[in-house]
Amino acid sequence: MDTAFVLYDELTALDLVGPYETLAAHASVRAHFVADRVGPVRADNGLTLHADTAFDELPRPDLIVVPGSSRWRDALANTALVSWLRSASPTATWTTSVCTGSLLLAEAGLLTGRPATTHWGVHDVLAAYGVEVRDERVVRDGRLITAAGVSAGIDMGLTLAASLWGEEVARVVQLMLEYDPQPPFDSGSPARATPETLAAAVALMG
Amino acid sequence: MDTAFVLYDELTALDLVGPYETLAAHASVRAHFVADRVGPVRADNGLTLHADTAFDELPRPDLIVVPGSSRWRDALANTALVSWLRSASPTATWTTSVCTGSLLLAEAGLLTGRPATTHWGVHDVLAAYGVEVRDERVVRDGRLITAAGVSAGIDMGLTLAASLWGEEVARVVQLMLEYDPQPPFDSGSPARATPETLAAAVALMG
Repeated sequence: MDTAFVLYDELTALDLVGPYETLAAHASVRAHFVADRVGPVRADNGLTLHADTAFDELPRPDLIVVPGSSRWRDALANTALVSWLRSASPTATWTTSVCTGSLLLAEAGLLTGRPATTHWGVHDVLAAYGVEVRDERVVRDGRLITAAGVSAGIDMGLTLAASLWGEEVARVVQLMLEYDPQPPFDSGSPARATPETLAAAVALMG
Repeated sequence: MDTAFVLYDELTALDLVGPYETLAAHASVRAHFVADRVGPVRADNGLTLHADTAFDELPRPDLIVVPGSSRWRDALANTALVSWLRSASPTATWTTSVCTGSLLLAEAGLLTGRPATTHWGVHDVLAAYGVEVRDERVVRDGRLITAAGVSAGIDMGLTLAASLWGEEVARVVQLMLEYDPQPPFDSGSPARATPETLAAAVALMG
Protein backbone atom coordinates (compact mmCIF):
# COMPACT_ATOMS: atom_id res chain seq x y z
CA MET A 1 0.00 0.00 0.00
CA ASP A 2 1.72 3.16 -1.22
CA THR A 3 1.10 5.67 1.52
CA ALA A 4 1.65 9.37 0.96
CA PHE A 5 2.47 11.26 4.12
CA VAL A 6 2.14 14.79 2.79
CA LEU A 7 4.68 17.43 3.78
CA TYR A 8 4.56 21.16 3.13
CA ASP A 9 6.17 24.24 4.63
CA GLU A 10 4.88 25.09 8.11
CA LEU A 11 2.95 21.86 8.60
CA THR A 12 2.23 20.85 12.20
CA ALA A 13 4.53 17.90 12.82
CA LEU A 14 2.31 16.06 15.31
CA ASP A 15 -0.57 16.09 12.80
CA LEU A 16 1.59 13.94 10.56
CA VAL A 17 3.51 11.89 13.09
CA GLY A 18 0.43 10.67 14.97
CA PRO A 19 -1.04 8.76 12.00
CA TYR A 20 2.45 7.84 10.77
CA GLU A 21 3.30 6.13 14.03
CA THR A 22 0.04 4.17 14.04
CA LEU A 23 0.37 3.04 10.41
CA ALA A 24 3.94 2.99 9.12
CA ALA A 25 5.17 0.00 11.11
CA HIS A 26 2.78 -2.35 9.31
CA ALA A 27 4.45 -4.59 6.73
CA SER A 28 1.90 -3.67 4.04
CA VAL A 29 2.71 0.05 4.18
CA ARG A 30 5.25 1.58 1.83
CA ALA A 31 5.71 5.00 3.38
CA HIS A 32 6.48 7.94 1.11
CA PHE A 33 7.06 11.42 2.47
CA VAL A 34 5.77 13.54 -0.35
CA ALA A 35 6.17 17.24 -1.06
CA ASP A 36 6.47 19.61 -3.99
CA ARG A 37 10.18 18.78 -4.08
CA VAL A 38 12.51 16.31 -2.44
CA GLY A 39 14.40 17.84 0.47
CA PRO A 40 13.89 19.55 3.81
CA VAL A 41 10.48 20.84 4.88
CA ARG A 42 10.25 22.98 7.99
CA ALA A 43 7.36 22.40 10.38
CA ASP A 44 5.60 25.30 12.09
CA ASN A 45 7.42 24.94 15.40
CA GLY A 46 10.90 24.53 13.91
CA LEU A 47 11.42 20.81 13.36
CA THR A 48 12.64 19.96 9.86
CA LEU A 49 11.37 16.81 8.16
CA HIS A 50 12.70 15.32 4.96
CA ALA A 51 10.56 14.74 1.85
CA ASP A 52 11.85 11.73 -0.08
CA THR A 53 9.36 11.88 -2.96
CA ALA A 54 8.11 14.71 -5.18
CA PHE A 55 4.39 14.99 -5.90
CA ASP A 56 4.86 14.08 -9.57
CA GLU A 57 6.71 10.90 -8.61
CA LEU A 58 3.67 9.53 -6.77
CA PRO A 59 0.54 10.36 -8.78
CA ARG A 60 -1.50 7.39 -7.52
CA PRO A 61 -0.95 6.58 -3.86
CA ASP A 62 -3.29 4.14 -2.15
CA LEU A 63 -3.52 6.14 1.06
CA ILE A 64 -3.07 9.87 1.58
CA VAL A 65 -2.46 11.50 4.98
CA VAL A 66 -2.72 15.29 5.02
CA PRO A 67 -1.57 17.17 8.13
CA GLY A 68 -2.69 20.65 9.06
CA SER A 69 -0.75 23.80 9.85
CA SER A 70 -1.09 26.78 12.13
CA ARG A 71 -0.32 28.75 8.93
CA TRP A 72 -3.23 27.16 7.11
CA ARG A 73 -3.98 30.32 5.13
CA ASP A 74 -0.55 30.07 3.50
CA ALA A 75 -1.06 26.36 2.91
CA LEU A 76 -4.33 27.02 1.07
CA ALA A 77 -2.36 29.20 -1.36
CA ASN A 78 0.07 26.35 -2.09
CA THR A 79 -1.21 25.48 -5.54
CA ALA A 80 1.19 22.57 -6.11
CA LEU A 81 -0.09 20.94 -2.94
CA VAL A 82 -3.79 21.56 -3.57
CA SER A 83 -3.53 20.49 -7.22
CA TRP A 84 -1.81 17.24 -6.26
CA LEU A 85 -4.51 16.46 -3.69
CA ARG A 86 -7.19 17.15 -6.29
CA SER A 87 -5.62 14.74 -8.80
CA ALA A 88 -4.35 12.03 -6.44
CA SER A 89 -7.34 11.61 -4.15
CA PRO A 90 -9.90 10.22 -6.63
CA THR A 91 -7.79 7.12 -7.32
CA ALA A 92 -6.65 6.64 -3.73
CA THR A 93 -8.41 4.03 -1.64
CA TRP A 94 -8.23 6.27 1.41
CA THR A 95 -7.88 10.00 1.83
CA THR A 96 -7.34 11.26 5.36
CA SER A 97 -6.57 14.51 7.11
CA VAL A 98 -5.75 15.83 10.54
CA CYS A 99 -6.56 19.29 11.93
CA THR A 100 -6.60 22.02 9.25
CA GLY A 101 -5.55 19.41 6.69
CA SER A 102 -9.25 19.10 5.92
CA LEU A 103 -9.24 22.71 4.73
CA LEU A 104 -6.75 21.65 2.07
CA LEU A 105 -9.03 18.82 1.02
CA ALA A 106 -11.93 21.27 0.88
CA GLU A 107 -9.88 23.74 -1.17
CA ALA A 108 -9.21 20.88 -3.58
CA GLY A 109 -12.97 20.38 -3.90
CA LEU A 110 -12.96 16.98 -2.25
CA LEU A 111 -15.32 17.67 0.66
CA THR A 112 -18.21 19.58 -0.86
CA GLY A 113 -21.47 18.39 0.67
CA ARG A 114 -19.75 15.73 2.72
CA PRO A 115 -19.42 15.31 6.50
CA ALA A 116 -15.97 16.13 7.88
CA THR A 117 -14.22 17.73 10.80
CA THR A 118 -11.20 19.92 11.55
CA HIS A 119 -9.58 21.84 14.42
CA TRP A 120 -12.26 23.42 16.63
CA GLY A 121 -10.90 26.87 15.84
CA VAL A 122 -11.72 26.70 12.12
CA HIS A 123 -15.08 24.93 11.98
CA ASP A 124 -16.53 28.05 10.35
CA VAL A 125 -13.82 28.12 7.70
CA LEU A 126 -14.51 24.52 6.75
CA ALA A 127 -18.26 25.13 6.72
CA ALA A 128 -17.76 27.99 4.25
CA TYR A 129 -16.60 25.39 1.72
CA GLY A 130 -20.02 23.76 1.83
CA VAL A 131 -18.84 20.99 4.11
CA GLU A 132 -21.15 19.40 6.66
CA VAL A 133 -18.92 20.07 9.67
CA ARG A 134 -19.23 17.59 12.52
CA ASP A 135 -18.17 18.30 16.07
CA GLU A 136 -16.55 14.87 16.38
CA ARG A 137 -13.00 13.72 16.89
CA VAL A 138 -12.86 11.42 13.86
CA VAL A 139 -15.36 11.52 10.98
CA ARG A 140 -15.50 8.74 8.43
CA ASP A 141 -17.44 9.10 5.20
CA GLY A 142 -16.72 6.16 2.98
CA ARG A 143 -13.06 6.23 2.06
CA LEU A 144 -12.57 9.68 3.51
CA ILE A 145 -11.54 10.15 7.13
CA THR A 146 -10.98 13.53 8.75
CA ALA A 147 -9.77 14.19 12.28
CA ALA A 148 -10.09 17.12 14.66
CA GLY A 149 -7.09 19.12 15.89
CA VAL A 150 -3.46 17.89 16.04
CA SER A 151 -3.54 15.05 18.58
CA ALA A 152 -6.72 13.62 17.03
CA GLY A 153 -4.53 12.12 14.34
CA ILE A 154 -3.61 9.31 16.72
CA ASP A 155 -7.27 8.40 17.19
CA MET A 156 -7.78 8.67 13.43
CA GLY A 157 -4.80 6.45 12.73
CA LEU A 158 -6.08 3.73 15.03
CA THR A 159 -9.53 3.95 13.47
CA LEU A 160 -7.99 3.58 10.03
CA ALA A 161 -5.72 0.74 11.16
CA ALA A 162 -8.81 -1.16 12.28
CA SER A 163 -10.48 -0.59 8.91
CA LEU A 164 -7.38 -1.69 7.04
CA TRP A 165 -6.26 -4.65 9.09
CA GLY A 166 -8.98 -5.44 11.61
CA GLU A 167 -9.63 -4.35 15.16
CA GLU A 168 -7.17 -6.78 16.75
CA VAL A 169 -4.24 -5.33 14.80
CA ALA A 170 -5.29 -1.83 15.83
CA ARG A 171 -5.42 -2.92 19.46
CA VAL A 172 -1.87 -4.24 19.22
CA VAL A 173 -0.72 -0.95 17.70
CA GLN A 174 -2.41 0.93 20.53
CA LEU A 175 -0.58 -1.20 23.08
CA MET A 176 2.78 -0.80 21.31
CA LEU A 177 2.31 2.98 21.46
CA GLU A 178 1.12 2.68 25.08
CA TYR A 179 -1.76 4.90 24.06
CA ASP A 180 -3.51 5.02 27.39
CA PRO A 181 -3.85 8.79 27.57
CA GLN A 182 -3.89 10.49 30.94
CA PRO A 183 -3.93 14.22 30.23
CA PRO A 184 -3.00 16.11 33.39
CA PHE A 185 -5.79 18.61 32.73
CA ASP A 186 -9.21 18.48 31.12
CA SER A 187 -9.09 21.39 28.73
CA GLY A 188 -8.62 19.63 25.41
CA SER A 189 -11.93 20.68 23.91
CA PRO A 190 -13.63 24.07 23.82
CA ALA A 191 -16.66 22.47 25.47
CA ARG A 192 -14.74 21.81 28.68
CA ALA A 193 -12.04 24.48 28.70
CA THR A 194 -12.75 27.50 30.87
CA PRO A 195 -13.78 30.73 29.13
CA GLU A 196 -10.36 32.16 30.04
CA THR A 197 -8.49 29.23 28.50
CA LEU A 198 -10.63 29.36 25.40
CA ALA A 199 -10.13 33.11 25.01
CA ALA A 200 -6.36 32.71 25.34
CA ALA A 201 -6.28 29.99 22.69
CA VAL A 202 -8.43 31.98 20.29
CA ALA A 203 -6.13 34.97 20.72
CA LEU A 204 -3.09 32.80 19.90
CA MET A 205 -4.72 31.58 16.72
CA GLY A 206 -5.00 35.16 15.46
CA MET B 1 15.59 28.31 27.42
CA ASP B 2 17.90 26.29 25.20
CA THR B 3 16.01 23.08 24.60
CA ALA B 4 17.74 20.01 23.21
CA PHE B 5 15.41 17.71 21.33
CA VAL B 6 17.72 14.73 20.96
CA LEU B 7 17.87 12.84 17.67
CA TYR B 8 19.61 9.57 16.93
CA ASP B 9 19.30 6.84 14.31
CA GLU B 10 16.13 4.76 14.65
CA LEU B 11 14.47 6.98 17.23
CA THR B 12 10.69 6.74 17.50
CA ALA B 13 9.43 9.97 15.98
CA LEU B 14 6.29 10.32 18.10
CA ASP B 15 8.37 10.06 21.28
CA LEU B 16 10.05 13.28 20.24
CA VAL B 17 7.23 15.09 18.48
CA GLY B 18 4.76 14.75 21.37
CA PRO B 19 6.82 16.83 23.82
CA TYR B 20 8.06 19.06 20.99
CA GLU B 21 4.54 20.02 20.02
CA THR B 22 3.60 20.83 23.63
CA LEU B 23 6.72 22.92 24.29
CA ALA B 24 8.29 24.40 21.18
CA ALA B 25 5.62 26.99 20.42
CA HIS B 26 6.35 28.88 23.65
CA ALA B 27 8.27 32.12 23.15
CA SER B 28 10.83 31.21 25.83
CA VAL B 29 11.93 28.01 24.05
CA ARG B 30 14.89 28.03 21.70
CA ALA B 31 14.51 24.63 20.05
CA HIS B 32 17.66 22.76 18.99
CA PHE B 33 17.51 19.41 17.25
CA VAL B 34 20.69 17.81 18.46
CA ALA B 35 22.54 14.73 17.24
CA ASP B 36 26.07 13.43 16.89
CA ARG B 37 26.29 15.34 13.63
CA VAL B 38 24.23 17.91 11.75
CA GLY B 39 22.14 16.31 9.01
CA PRO B 40 19.46 13.72 8.41
CA VAL B 41 18.47 11.22 11.09
CA ARG B 42 16.18 8.37 10.15
CA ALA B 43 13.44 7.37 12.60
CA ASP B 44 12.53 3.73 13.17
CA ASN B 45 9.47 3.76 10.90
CA GLY B 46 11.11 5.59 8.01
CA LEU B 47 10.54 9.30 8.58
CA THR B 48 13.72 11.36 8.32
CA LEU B 49 14.22 14.30 10.68
CA HIS B 50 16.95 16.92 10.43
CA ALA B 51 19.47 17.61 13.18
CA ASP B 52 20.51 21.26 13.14
CA THR B 53 23.01 21.12 16.00
CA ALA B 54 25.84 18.74 16.86
CA PHE B 55 26.23 17.53 20.44
CA ASP B 56 29.48 19.47 20.94
CA GLU B 57 27.79 22.68 19.84
CA LEU B 58 25.31 22.53 22.73
CA PRO B 59 27.13 21.34 25.85
CA ARG B 60 24.82 23.08 28.35
CA PRO B 61 21.17 23.03 27.31
CA ASP B 62 18.56 24.10 29.86
CA LEU B 63 16.11 21.36 28.94
CA ILE B 64 16.82 17.93 27.42
CA VAL B 65 14.16 15.76 25.76
CA VAL B 66 15.27 12.18 25.00
CA PRO B 67 13.03 9.99 22.84
CA GLY B 68 13.10 6.22 22.79
CA SER B 69 13.51 3.73 19.99
CA SER B 70 12.25 0.30 19.09
CA ARG B 71 15.95 -0.41 18.47
CA TRP B 72 16.89 0.62 21.99
CA ARG B 73 19.64 -1.98 22.23
CA ASP B 74 21.48 -0.25 19.36
CA ALA B 75 20.84 3.13 20.93
CA LEU B 76 22.45 2.02 24.20
CA ALA B 77 25.62 1.26 22.22
CA ASN B 78 25.68 4.81 20.81
CA THR B 79 28.55 6.13 22.91
CA ALA B 80 28.44 9.66 21.50
CA LEU B 81 24.80 9.92 22.55
CA VAL B 82 25.20 8.39 26.00
CA SER B 83 28.35 10.42 26.73
CA TRP B 84 26.63 13.65 25.79
CA LEU B 85 23.68 12.87 28.06
CA ARG B 86 26.07 12.10 30.91
CA SER B 87 27.88 15.41 30.52
CA ALA B 88 24.94 17.67 29.60
CA SER B 89 22.33 16.55 32.09
CA PRO B 90 23.97 17.68 35.36
CA THR B 91 23.89 21.33 34.33
CA ALA B 92 20.47 21.19 32.69
CA THR B 93 17.50 22.49 34.63
CA TRP B 94 15.32 19.69 33.29
CA THR B 95 16.13 16.27 31.88
CA THR B 96 13.22 14.37 30.38
CA SER B 97 12.65 11.16 28.47
CA VAL B 98 9.90 9.31 26.68
CA CYS B 99 9.56 5.53 26.26
CA THR B 100 12.92 3.73 26.11
CA GLY B 101 14.66 7.10 26.28
CA SER B 102 14.90 6.46 30.02
CA LEU B 103 17.15 3.47 29.28
CA LEU B 104 19.60 5.91 27.70
CA LEU B 105 19.48 8.08 30.82
CA ALA B 106 20.07 4.97 32.92
CA GLU B 107 22.98 3.89 30.73
CA ALA B 108 24.44 7.35 31.30
CA GLY B 109 24.21 6.72 35.05
CA LEU B 110 21.61 9.41 35.63
CA LEU B 111 18.83 7.28 37.13
CA THR B 112 20.56 5.04 39.66
CA GLY B 113 18.40 4.71 42.77
CA ARG B 114 15.82 7.12 41.44
CA PRO B 115 12.15 6.63 40.53
CA ALA B 116 11.46 6.57 36.80
CA THR B 117 9.35 4.90 34.14
CA THR B 118 9.63 3.63 30.57
CA HIS B 119 7.68 1.61 27.98
CA TRP B 120 5.80 -1.23 29.69
CA GLY B 121 7.75 -3.78 27.65
CA VAL B 122 11.13 -2.89 29.17
CA HIS B 123 10.37 -2.27 32.84
CA ASP B 124 12.72 -5.15 33.69
CA VAL B 125 15.54 -3.67 31.61
CA LEU B 126 15.24 -0.33 33.41
CA ALA B 127 15.08 -2.05 36.80
CA ALA B 128 18.34 -3.85 36.04
CA TYR B 129 20.07 -0.45 36.10
CA GLY B 130 19.11 -0.05 39.75
CA VAL B 131 16.22 2.24 38.93
CA GLU B 132 13.07 2.30 41.06
CA VAL B 133 10.66 1.59 38.21
CA ARG B 134 7.17 3.02 38.60
CA ASP B 135 4.14 1.77 36.74
CA GLU B 136 2.96 5.31 36.06
CA ARG B 137 2.51 7.33 32.90
CA VAL B 138 4.67 10.28 33.95
CA VAL B 139 7.15 10.17 36.83
CA ARG B 140 8.70 13.33 38.18
CA ASP B 141 11.67 13.24 40.53
CA GLY B 142 12.94 16.75 41.07
CA ARG B 143 14.21 18.06 37.76
CA LEU B 144 13.95 14.67 36.09
CA ILE B 145 10.77 13.61 34.31
CA THR B 146 10.34 10.27 32.57
CA ALA B 147 7.33 9.10 30.59
CA ALA B 148 5.94 5.69 29.66
CA GLY B 149 5.72 4.48 26.05
CA VAL B 150 5.57 6.68 22.94
CA SER B 151 2.29 8.58 23.26
CA ALA B 152 2.98 9.31 26.95
CA GLY B 153 5.30 12.08 25.78
CA ILE B 154 2.27 14.29 25.21
CA ASP B 155 1.16 13.88 28.83
CA MET B 156 4.75 14.46 29.95
CA GLY B 157 5.04 17.59 27.84
CA LEU B 158 1.88 19.08 29.33
CA THR B 159 3.07 18.24 32.84
CA LEU B 160 6.39 19.95 32.13
CA ALA B 161 4.66 22.94 30.52
CA ALA B 162 2.70 23.43 33.74
CA SER B 163 5.89 23.29 35.81
CA LEU B 164 7.65 25.75 33.52
CA TRP B 165 4.90 28.25 32.85
CA GLY B 166 1.99 27.46 35.13
CA GLU B 167 -1.10 25.34 34.78
CA GLU B 168 -3.09 27.90 32.81
CA VAL B 169 -0.49 27.99 30.02
CA ALA B 170 -0.49 24.19 29.90
CA ARG B 171 -4.28 24.18 29.60
CA VAL B 172 -4.08 26.56 26.65
CA VAL B 173 -1.52 24.29 24.98
CA GLN B 174 -3.79 21.31 25.54
CA LEU B 175 -6.67 23.15 23.90
CA MET B 176 -4.52 24.29 20.96
CA LEU B 177 -3.55 20.65 20.37
CA GLU B 178 -7.19 19.61 20.88
CA TYR B 179 -5.83 16.96 23.22
CA ASP B 180 -9.13 15.44 24.22
CA PRO B 181 -8.16 11.84 23.51
CA GLN B 182 -10.84 9.38 22.46
CA PRO B 183 -9.02 6.14 21.66
CA PRO B 184 -11.34 3.87 19.67
CA PHE B 185 -10.23 0.90 21.79
CA ASP B 186 -9.10 0.39 25.37
CA SER B 187 -5.93 -1.61 24.92
CA GLY B 188 -3.30 1.03 25.57
CA SER B 189 -1.90 -0.55 28.72
CA PRO B 190 -0.93 -4.16 29.44
CA ALA B 191 -3.30 -4.07 32.42
CA ARG B 192 -6.33 -3.70 30.18
CA ALA B 193 -5.27 -5.33 26.91
CA THR B 194 -6.48 -8.88 26.39
CA PRO B 195 -3.93 -11.69 26.84
CA GLU B 196 -4.02 -12.18 23.05
CA THR B 197 -3.26 -8.54 22.33
CA LEU B 198 -0.51 -8.49 24.92
CA ALA B 199 1.07 -11.66 23.53
CA ALA B 200 1.02 -10.24 20.00
CA ALA B 201 2.69 -7.01 21.15
CA VAL B 202 5.35 -8.86 23.12
CA ALA B 203 6.12 -11.00 20.05
CA LEU B 204 6.54 -7.87 17.92
CA MET B 205 9.00 -6.41 20.40
CA GLY B 206 11.24 -9.42 19.98
